[in-house]
Amino acid sequence: MEGLKAILLICDGMADRPVPQLGDRTPLEAANNVNMNTLASQGECGLMDPIAPGIRAGSDTSHLAILGYDPYESYTGRGPFEAAGIGMDVKGGDIAFRCNFSTVDENMIVVDRRAGRIESGTDQLAAAVNGMKIEDVTCFFKESVAHRGALVLRGPGLGPSVTDADPHEVGAKVHDVYPCDANDSLSAKTARIVNEFVRRSYQILKDHEVNKRRVSEGKQPANIILPRGAGLAPSLQNFNEKYSLKGAAVVETGLIAGIAVYLGLDIVEAPGATGGLDSDVMSIGRTVLKVLDDHNFVLCNVKGPDVAAHDGQPDAKKEFIEKIDSVVGMLMQNVDKQTYIILTADHTTPIATGDHSGDPVPICFWGPGVRVDSVKAYDERSVVGGGVVRIRGRDLMNILTNLMNTQEKFGA
Amino acid sequence: MEGLKAILLICDGMADRPVPQLGDRTPLEAANNVNMNTLASQGECGLMDPIAPGIRAGSDTSHLAILGYDPYESYTGRGPFEAAGIGMDVKGGDIAFRCNFSTVDENMIVVDRRAGRIESGTDQLAAAVNGMKIEDVTCFFKESVAHRGALVLRGPGLGPSVTDADPHEVGAKVHDVYPCDANDSLSAKTARIVNEFVRRSYQILKDHEVNKRRVSEGKQPANIILPRGAGLAPSLQNFNEKYSLKGAAVVETGLIAGIAVYLGLDIVEAPGATGGLDSDVMSIGRTVLKVLDDHNFVLCNVKGPDVAAHDGQPDAKKEFIEKIDSVVGMLMQNVDKQTYIILTADHTTPIATGDHSGDPVPICFWGPGVRVDSVKAYDERSVVGGGVVRIRGRDLMNILTNLMNTQEKFGA
Repeated sequence: MEGLKAILLICDGMADRPVPQLGDRTPLEAANNVNMNTLASQGECGLMDPIAPGIRAGSDTSHLAILGYDPYESYTGRGPFEAAGIGMDVKGGDIAFRCNFSTVDENMIVVDRRAGRIESGTDQLAAAVNGMKIEDVTCFFKESVAHRGALVLRGPGLGPSVTDADPHEVGAKVHDVYPCDANDSLSAKTARIVNEFVRRSYQILKDHEVNKRRVSEGKQPANIILPRGAGLAPSLQNFNEKYSLKGAAVVETGLIAGIAVYLGLDIVEAPGATGGLDSDVMSIGRTVLKVLDDHNFVLCNVKGPDVAAHDGQPDAKKEFIEKIDSVVGMLMQNVDKQTYIILTADHTTPIATGDHSGDPVPICFWGPGVRVDSVKAYDERSVVGGGVVRIRGRDLMNILTNLMNTQEKFGA
Repeated sequence: MEGLKAILLICDGMADRPVPQLGDRTPLEAANNVNMNTLASQGECGLMDPIAPGIRAGSDTSHLAILGYDPYESYTGRGPFEAAGIGMDVKGGDIAFRCNFSTVDENMIVVDRRAGRIESGTDQLAAAVNGMKIEDVTCFFKESVAHRGALVLRGPGLGPSVTDADPHEVGAKVHDVYPCDANDSLSAKTARIVNEFVRRSYQILKDHEVNKRRVSEGKQPANIILPRGAGLAPSLQNFNEKYSLKGAAVVETGLIAGIAVYLGLDIVEAPGATGGLDSDVMSIGRTVLKVLDDHNFVLCNVKGPDVAAHDGQPDAKKEFIEKIDSVVGMLMQNVDKQTYIILTADHTTPIATGDHSGDPVPICFWGPGVRVDSVKAYDERSVVGGGVVRIRGRDLMNILTNLMNTQEKFGA
């Protein structure tokens, strides 16, 4: 595409706190990240609170905020985004559930919540229940990886506040689903539909060919579907319409892909991207460049730093950051002078806690017209004093579309 | 007046991005602005987002925000403020329109949208239609400059969402005005009133003496009034009541004057103020000083930097900033030790784009008791690291009335 473009490179959980094993430096500070430092020297830097100062963001809520959607309004749980992420057509107002294929006995007692960790055949099982009509509601069901799947209910008068059918423990009876508030007639309808869906799923699946074969092989049959985590699919404005951009996403996790799909971004898969520490990050970078041929915005999420931090491995995190650094260098060399690179993280994942924290993350805006500041290095503490000062995730797209000149002026 | 006073000096569109022709400095950075630098050295500096980070502000929305009014609630378009700016008494709930005197033939086909760029006599034409009663609505009309004017409808049950009577092209028939939503009975009433106003304006104006003379001189008659851009006049608290101040405005554009009048500020005109690059800025400064004799707050808007930037002239912008710098020096020398000077801009207008952008602007608070910081120069990048850090336009009046001690304590 012609004109101004942007790469938004979100390094999952890359920010950290000082780590004793690294001499009280963060992995970013300890890493040999010369290209990121060059980016910082040529760009405008600062800190970003993905949601708000101190708020511990999930990757999903953070990505929503960074893409300009208020997570307190748009986030109702993972369900709708996970369903979108596995290719289901989810619309605002639908009720979405995460589901397991499970094994129950004839008394509806859960024998195995994961149906013997079933690996194949779930597509056929899903097809057997997908499209079921209950009252005036259509039940869409699709398998995900392993024993997982998603259920989407579409119809009039449905509410999202219902309990789980999944009892979350082996040996317990499948739970009847109830509305969380007995006076909530919308959720009461949802509960009624889900109970019937679960009942029928058992009737349909217990004698399905796939399960007959599994039983004959001594495996647990995937003879019931157990929904949990009901969520109302939010009505969100299409990203491309909101910002007058043509956007794509090159991301490593299903949840982030689900958010991207939900917002209308094109998903492009990078060969060799695994979402783990073995991921081919350079391949991701090359894919990002290719995507810019016919898009002017790319969201790229690289998962490795978060994985290393969750595992409590400071050296692995540092080394993965250095892999990303090479990609930053490659991108800087290969983009034209009309392209912005925004380098940031979706949240801090401290080695010390192994989980997301609410500390701010460094951010750098690099590209035409930015007010290059005095910051010379890209890490949590070096960016302090930069021209960006301290922004919130929800400011990012406004700042970017201001630079890209796709934003309407407010007023005269 | 005795006691603490303040000059809020808003240099329209003064902030910029690095300009290649100026050695990648901004006009403010390139300018010889010694007095502004002294102000910064003796004051407290930082960045301000007029509305929010990245948001491209108009001068109108920005001034509303800087004066402490949420533009997302108080801004319904230029109409009400322009009407106030030409001296009309606009009240919250009125419906205001921008209008043209136009020329139509007997079939209501627009022959000239600007009535031959009429220069005189519009005051008599306006008087002939002003005060018209249609149903229970009074139609106030006043001429503005050249072929322009404003219509204000006042009466019960009026809505603002109507289409334009002005077809916006020559050769087209005058448009019937409709409510944007057919079910909106309030706007349907407005549409009915406007259609009747337009019809009657033609009946009254076509044979008016002014037009008879114009026709005899071979000029197009201003024989109809065509309203457009309907806006609901917002109900805004009087500025002086809101802040316990006695405020005035010395400004160069009708739109900003309109906002100031609307908020209840006294308008004082400076001799030689043109709103262009030839404006006598020192005269504006002297007027500001005089106004402080009987006011304790002056809003001053100088338009030149924005004009130069819209024209893409970096040197002209730099030179105009230097003119303002002389005024800053004069003000610093002539105000007493009880007077604050706040120096800022209403938005960035980059030379590169020639239009408003959403980049933050520098701000300096100078006067008794401010926490003087380490900033030694007044420009977009030198103020980074100052004590003000990064605020929003809507914070400004709170910070100022805190310093001036006119603000009530919130709590005990």
